[in-house]
Order: sequence, then C-alpha cells, then structure tokens
Amino acid sequence: METHITYESLMAMEKRQRTNLVNSTGGFKSVCLIGTKDKKGKTNLAVFNSITHIGATPPLIAFIVRPDSVERHTLSNILETGCYTINHLNEKIYKRGHQTSARYPKEISEFAAVGLKENYKDGFLAPYVEESNVQLGIQFKERLDLTINGTILIIGQIEHLYFPKNCLYDDAFLDLEKANTVTCSGLDSYHKTQRLERLSYAKPGIELEAIITEHSD
Amino acid sequence: METHITYESLMAMEKRQRTNLVNSTGGFKSVCLIGTKDKKGKTNLAVFNSITHIGATPPLIAFIVRPDSVERHTLSNILETGCYTINHLNEKIYKRGHQTSARYPKEISEFAAVGLKENYKDGFLAPYVEESNVQLGIQFKERLDLTINGTILIIGQIEHLYFPKNCLYDDAFLDLEKANTVTCSGLDSYHKTQRLERLSYAKPGIELEAIITEHSD
Repeated sequence: METHITYESLMAMEKRQRTNLVNSTGGFKSVCLIGTKDKKGKTNLAVFNSITHIGATPPLIAFIVRPDSVERHTLSNILETGCYTINHLNEKIYKRGHQTSARYPKEISEFAAVGLKENYKDGFLAPYVEESNVQLGIQFKERLDLTINGTILIIGQIEHLYFPKNCLYDDAFLDLEKANTVTCSGLDSYHKTQRLERLSYAKPGIELEAIITEHSD
Repeated sequence: METHITYESLMAMEKRQRTNLVNSTGGFKSVCLIGTKDKKGKTNLAVFNSITHIGATPPLIAFIVRPDSVERHTLSNILETGCYTINHLNEKIYKRGHQTSARYPKEISEFAAVGLKENYKDGFLAPYVEESNVQLGIQFKERLDLTINGTILIIGQIEHLYFPKNCLYDDAFLDLEKANTVTCSGLDSYHKTQRLERLSYAKPGIELEAIITEHSD
C-alpha cells in the first residue's frame, strides 16, 4: 500500500511532524561535525547533515546554514576567521555529535560540553575533532544567500584532508565504511552501512562490472 | 597511521584519481534518480548524489547540476517544463540507476535503455520510476549559478510524496531503511544501511535517549 502526501497536506501538518517528514524525503545524508574558532579563541562545534560535493577541480564542498538556529555561531566564526573543519561522525562519537545540536550559550564550547577533544595540526587555525577518523581543513570561499527561505549556502575549498592510511584504494577511492563513518536519515536517525558493491564507469551498451580494487598496502 | 593530503597534492593528482578522492570526502550521500520529460514528450532519467534538504516550511529540496555532463538533459527539461521527480534507489534497482550515468544520445530515454518503468499519477507531467519505493514530485522554484566552478544549484518544492504505508512512524519520521533506500559514497559505491538508533532532541545537560516510536499500524 502506498501513501500519497501533497504539498497542501504537508503544509497543514503540525510543524515538528512536517520537519521530521520533509527531512526524511531526501534520502540518507552525510553527517559531520563542523569545528570553528572565533577571533578571541573560543571554539564551537556543531553537527550538520547538509554537506554536499560541489566539484573536484578545485576541491570544493558546501553546506547549508540556518541563521536562526544554533548554527549561527558556526557561521559567524567562519565569516570572522575564514576557515573551519569538517569531521566525519563514526560509531564511537555519533551520540556526542548529536548532542552538539543542543542550544549551549556562546561562552560554552561544545567540545567541552559533549566530551570531544580539540586537535590542531599543520598550522591550521580551526579545531579538528580528534576522535573523528576523516577530517577536512576548509578555507571559506563563498556565501550564497538563498532568498527563497533565508538559509545560506557556504562553499569552501579543501586545504587539508586526513584519514586512516589503510582506507585509500589504488584508484584513490576512500573507503568510508572502513573508516567507520556513519550516515543519517531524517533529523535524528544514525546508521552504519554495508557495501553492496562498487560499480564500473557506465557506458551505453556495456554491462556494468563490480570494481574490486583494494588499497595498496 | 594517518595520511595527510594537502590542496596542492590534490591538485597534482591525476584527474580521475582526484575525482574519486574528493567525491569520497563529504561522507555518505543520498543517491536518487531524477525523472524529466521535454516539451515533445521525450523522457530522461539520470542519477544524482547531491540531493540536499533546504527547508521544511515550505518543503524545499535542492541538487547540483554539472552542465557539461549527461546531466544537461535533466537541466534543460526542468527549465522547459518546470517539474521533475526524485526517486530513491533501492537494492533492486541501484545497478540500473548507476547505468543511467552513461552518455546516451538525447533521442534515447534512459528509462528504456536501463529497463526501468515510467509511472505517471495525479496529473503530474514528469515521470516517476515505478520500481522506486520513495518518490517525490517536484516543482522547480529557483536556479542559482555557482560561478566558482560553473555548477548550478536547482531548488524545488515538494508537490507530491509517495512511500510505502508501513514506513511512516507516529511522529512522521519516514523509515528509509524499511523502504530499502540505499546510500552511496564516492562516485560508484552503493551501500545498504543498518540503524544504530534514533536520538532524542538534544538539550544542554540532558542525557540523550533512544527514540523507539514505531509506525501506527
């Protein structure tokens, strides 16, 4: 049996219900912690599930900020310092990651509040999450205001990328499952993954094959 | 052991390798088929892994188009007709979904080429994928050109939403795992998921709890 929900019935739903449902419709999502620091040295950490690949040449990545939410501290720090980190959640830290979405006052760092450790390396100003296995150091490039609903698309360039050595394959595919990265659905559901397969580059009339490249060690 | 890759070493990599690696850095992604039709009635189907939630009120969803790729047919059809469908991939159809990324000539519909069935309902012009369990009918709202690399952000509004009846919980969370929706990483890796748990709304100083709401039937 199929359920059909229209725009009108979505808009007539109670707000929290609509938020749950609409957040589920896009499919499984990336879920990462964004680490920032303000000019005075106060750190902030917030969970985001709107990370999107923009391009590889140059390496660009984006996410959406809602300025009326706890995410506003992340935004103001990025605009102040021009840099931030993106840190993948894994099975050991997804609960602490989720807890960063609580409305802590600006003077409290979510790192300390939820029990995650700040990590600094290679001269980058913004704090990485030490417990995260895949970490990106990002330079802010562009802000695009989406006037349609007041959200903001933040685009940045990958300056640094860190991951466990045994997760990189010969063809430069990064095995996120081996890095224990988790995914999320809706606003609050966390999932681990199980690979079905990697598929070869698609061409008309050619049968797809499973890619079985492994990492080089 | 940790591997460190910088912007400079990314840019020095062979193009295909850089594409593989950078596409992996954002985490697990939504992977959906976008169905469109041109003014003459010719259909098109293409796989996208950049679906992003923009907001719930009104219900908005976005994705990124690369105009120099096979995705250009999707873009021109959307601009012509103002509508499209977003269809979740599941375990039965992810291979056929991946095959839509082959460069078929404009006169061939990917529906026929890969063996997926067009489905029309409730007076909506664009074709749904019949084999998909979660289907969205979208009205085009806005196009944002990302001058930084020539890609385009397409924002649309959810007009219709279809899913299996037993997947909706009492709090309007949609159980994508029950709907057999898959996720992807990199350019070509498909994964099924296993729920860790749903977590309660986070508040400072309050311990998170697992949400165990089920669907109402």
